[in-house]
Order: sequence, then C-alpha cells, then structure tokens
Amino acid sequence: MATAIQTATLQRVAQIFDAQVPFHNLLGLDIKRYDLDGVEVTIRMKPELIGNIHQQILHGGVTATILDVVGGLTAFAGLVASRDDWSLEALQQRLKTLGTIDMRVDYLRPGRGDVFTGTGSVIRAGNRVSVCRMELHNEQGTHIAFGTGTYMVG
Amino acid sequence: MATAIQTATLQRVAQIFDAQVPFHNLLGLDIKRYDLDGVEVTIRMKPELIGNIHQQILHGGVTATILDVVGGLTAFAGLVASRDDWSLEALQQRLKTLGTIDMRVDYLRPGRGDVFTGTGSVIRAGNRVSVCRMELHNEQGTHIAFGTGTYMVG
Amino acid sequence: MATAIQTATLQRVAQIFDAQVPFHNLLGLDIKRYDLDGVEVTIRMKPELIGNIHQQILHGGVTATILDVVGGLTAFAGLVASRDDWSLEALQQRLKTLGTIDMRVDYLRPGRGDVFTGTGSVIRAGNRVSVCRMELHNEQGTHIAFGTGTYMVG
Amino acid sequence: MATAIQTATLQRVAQIFDAQVPFHNLLGLDIKRYDLDGVEVTIRMKPELIGNIHQQILHGGVTATILDVVGGLTAFAGLVASRDDWSLEALQQRLKTLGTIDMRVDYLRPGRGDVFTGTGSVIRAGNRVSVCRMELHNEQGTHIAFGTGTYMVG
Repeated sequence: MATAIQTATLQRVAQIFDAQVPFHNLLGLDIKRYDLDGVEVTIRMKPELIGNIHQQILHGGVTATILDVVGGLTAFAGLVASRDDWSLEALQQRLKTLGTIDMRVDYLRPGRGDVFTGTGSVIRAGNRVSVCRMELHNEQGTHIAFGTGTYMVG
Repeated sequence: MATAIQTATLQRVAQIFDAQVPFHNLLGLDIKRYDLDGVEVTIRMKPELIGNIHQQILHGGVTATILDVVGGLTAFAGLVASRDDWSLEALQQRLKTLGTIDMRVDYLRPGRGDVFTGTGSVIRAGNRVSVCRMELHNEQGTHIAFGTGTYMVG
Repeated sequence: MATAIQTATLQRVAQIFDAQVPFHNLLGLDIKRYDLDGVEVTIRMKPELIGNIHQQILHGGVTATILDVVGGLTAFAGLVASRDDWSLEALQQRLKTLGTIDMRVDYLRPGRGDVFTGTGSVIRAGNRVSVCRMELHNEQGTHIAFGTGTYMVG
Repeated sequence: MATAIQTATLQRVAQIFDAQVPFHNLLGLDIKRYDLDGVEVTIRMKPELIGNIHQQILHGGVTATILDVVGGLTAFAGLVASRDDWSLEALQQRLKTLGTIDMRVDYLRPGRGDVFTGTGSVIRAGNRVSVCRMELHNEQGTHIAFGTGTYMVG
C-alpha cells in the first residue's frame, strides 16, 4: 500500500503533467491514472495532430511524445515505489532531476484511431537511472508503437 | 547537378511538409532548405512548446518530432539523389511508402534557445531502407540532441 | 501446420547457424529449437566468455551476439511463416539477404549463470523489413537483457 | 596535460582490458591507444570470427563487442578527464561501477577486411551517466558500423 507521501507526490506530479505543461495542453494529453503500479496517458485524435492528411494518421512525433511522457512517469513511479520512507522534499528534489537520456521508438502500425493510450513498465530500476518499456495502443487495442527509454531519476 | 524531376519533387515535398501537415503547422515547423544535399528544418520557440515551465525548455517530444521529420526528409533526398533517371510517378510512389521504422533520440542538453535547427545525413543508403543520423542545435550552436533513424523508402 | 518446404528450410538454417558459422562454434552457441513459432538459442558459460574476472560474468558482447542471432532467426521464421506457398529457391534467396540493420541492447542485470537462453518475437512483420524483440535469461529464469532489432528479410 | 594519477589509471585499465579479460583474449582484441583523448581498439580478422562463410565477413556480434568495449573505455576516459584532482582510490571505485546500460548498433556495410579499428567520443558527459558514439572501420577506411551507447560511470 502506498504511503501518504507517495500518494501525495504522484497526485501532484499527475496534476503538473496534466495541466501545467504547455506542450501537453497543446496536444490534449491526459494523465488518466498515475499510481505506484504505473501510468495511463491518453490523447484524443484531433485534426491538428495529423501527420498525413491522405491517411489521416497521427504524426510520429505525437507518438514519440506520448511514449516519452509515459516513460518518464513510469520511471518516476518506480523510484517512488522503491522506498516507503521518502520525505516529500527528497521526492521533490528527485523530480527536478527527472529527464530522458535516450529513447528508442519502434513504429509498428499507422496511428489510426480516436483515442490513443500509452502505458509502460520499468525493466531496469536504479537509484540514479531507470530503463522503461512503453506501448501505445488505440481504442480498439491495435498496437501502434513500442518505446524503450533510459531515464535519469536522481 | 539535380535534374528537373529531382528538383521539382523535392520542392513539392518541401511544400507539403511545410504547409500541408497539420502537426507541423501546430508546432510552427519550417522547412528552410531542401535539396539533394540535405534538409534544414527549424522551429521557433513559443510558449506552447515548453515542457518545463520552471526551466522554460523545449519539450522532448518537440525535439523528437523535429529529428524524425529531418530523418525522413534526409532519407528521401538520398533516395532521390541515388538515380538521375527517376520518373515523377516513381518518386510519388516512393513518397507514399516513406515512413519511420525506428528512431533513437539522445538528449544531450536542455532545449534552451529561440530557434532550433535540425539537420541530417544518410549513413546507410538503400533502395528499400535507409538509415540517417540527425542533429538539433539552437541559434547559438549549442547541440541539443542527436537522432538515429531507420526509414522505409520503397 | 508447417509445410514440408517451411520445415526443411528452417531445419537447414538451424543446422547452418548451429554448426557452420565459425563464430558460433567459437562461443559454443546452440540452436536448441527452431520452428515457425520461434527460436531458442543457448550458450553455456565457459571461462573464455567472461568479461569481468572478479565478478565472473558474461561479457556484454556475448549477450549482444546471442540477442542478434535470435533476432535474425526470429525475423526469418516470421518471413517463412508469412506464406505457405514459398518455393525452396525463393527462401534460399531470402536467406542470402537476411541481415541486421540496427539493434538496441538493454542490459538489465549482470550475466551470471551456467546456461543462457535467448528467445524472441516479431513485433513488426514485413516482406522486406521485420522488427523483433529478444530476451536473454539464465537457467534460473533471471532476466539478463532485452534486445530490439530491425532486420532486412528481402 | 594528464596528471600522474590520470595516466596511471588509464594505463592500468588498458592493461586489464588488453590482457585480463578472457573474452577479449578469445577474440584477439587489442587496446592500441588509451589516453584522455580517447581510445583505439583493434581486432585482426581470423577464421573464428567469421559470421558468414560464403562472404567471409565479420560476425555482427564481434562488431557489437568492439563497439561496446570502445564505448565503455571512452566513457571512462571522459570521466577521468573531467577532473584533475581524482584520487587513485576514487577512480578505482568508479571503474567497478562502469557498465553498459544500453547500446544501439547500426550496421552500415559487411565486415570485410583484415584489421578493424574502433574509436569513439563522448556526446553527453555526466558524473553518473555518459553517452558515447562509436565507429568501426577496416584498414582501408571503410566504415563498417556506428554505435551509440549509454554507460554508467558512477
């Protein structure tokens, strides 16, 4: 079970990523769920996100953006979950250093759909660096893309 | 020297990527130069592209987007340059199959600056698949990110 | 069910990879299983494969080698499985073009163990290019590494 | 100019990598040069390193091995160069934590040749994590492969 500090931290981070990141607002990116078990990020298709007007598919840059956001949030949740005696200050400090070192995106299928959902899991957990795998699916369960990212968490 | 068909094709592609891709318009992405030698893509910083309000830096998803666009255009220019007897129809057909298979982004420094410029080069040229390396710099020459992408070109 | 040509082709490829690739012999790489459903490649720890004498762990280059071999065989099995009317000649031709375009390796844990097993699956199947994900585990089920590779198959 | 401790450390590391890593001995891997400016690692073609007997080319796993070794040594040299007041003990401690987090290999051309040389440079220097780019050429200057790797250095 999550401690009060863990819960409060993740809620605060979800709020920031949901409402206070200008580029997330521009895209309409939504943090649907964020707890110690992981994150669910969605984006609703809209004309401005299209990369190919003939095929009406999501721009690959939007796919990369969702996967990167999912990876960062997944890595941070893993760090928060790794100890139950974090102080609020320590976690706020860690959040400031959170950043992507590198990311690979594998584009599997054209980004067709109405709602795209990104999820992820930690494959290497560390006190300084974590590696995550991410996935993007549309509302019909079609798998659009995979991501693999290495994140600084401390 | 470029043939008339090569020149016309690249100009047409530059126009499409510059003005007819909705997501490029949303971001304000500009194709500054596009010829057989390569491409120069720029983006001007604006509040909506920010990923971290405290640090006022470009969102990593914008960085990934520019690098991916640069990679695709670089791969396609390499294909166009590989023969001087292309027909307009053959190149239009190839353009339809142009797509990213995978891409790695290495984030080197925070995306601070006013104007960001992406450039690239082909490291493996093929009739079906090409691999490119891409770079993103700000207006002061600070190197923000590297990209490596594998593109379907036929 | 596999056709006779599919079965014969995969058996022949397994024999070649098992016994006729000098570097596989040097490492002691074994093709344990190879059919339309996938491949299982093993390697037994021996002193020559060690990368760190103090920790007695597998060299990262051995890990990369197994993952790459698994990825290539997985991609080829996927191609063979994609049609049931292949001719033997067509498949032999395809085998000649089989090659790695790019690969990412994620090192998750030190390579400790006696027998290491690599497995994989196709995440993007194509007539020219396939993308695979690969895994390496030791005999206790410890997950040592992940791989993601893009392969030319035609 | 390198301090005595920097010089002694790199010489010691070069000796270890050259002579005391069993897998490097198996392959015949040579550390030709190792100083604050970088590293040069070579390997001489021999029958056991062949991956394709018809084409007589280097196995892709050998290529990955050289690139990974070059990347690790390059990352460590960058760390050593980052301060001129390192103690011998501090550097020995850092060497113990040196390890590959992830690596991408781009195979550009078949590995034909007699002597293969790997070189690299740091693209992101950090106190905990460094990212390097690596290259492999044959004795005629033919570019065989690129690598990009993320290394733990502390």
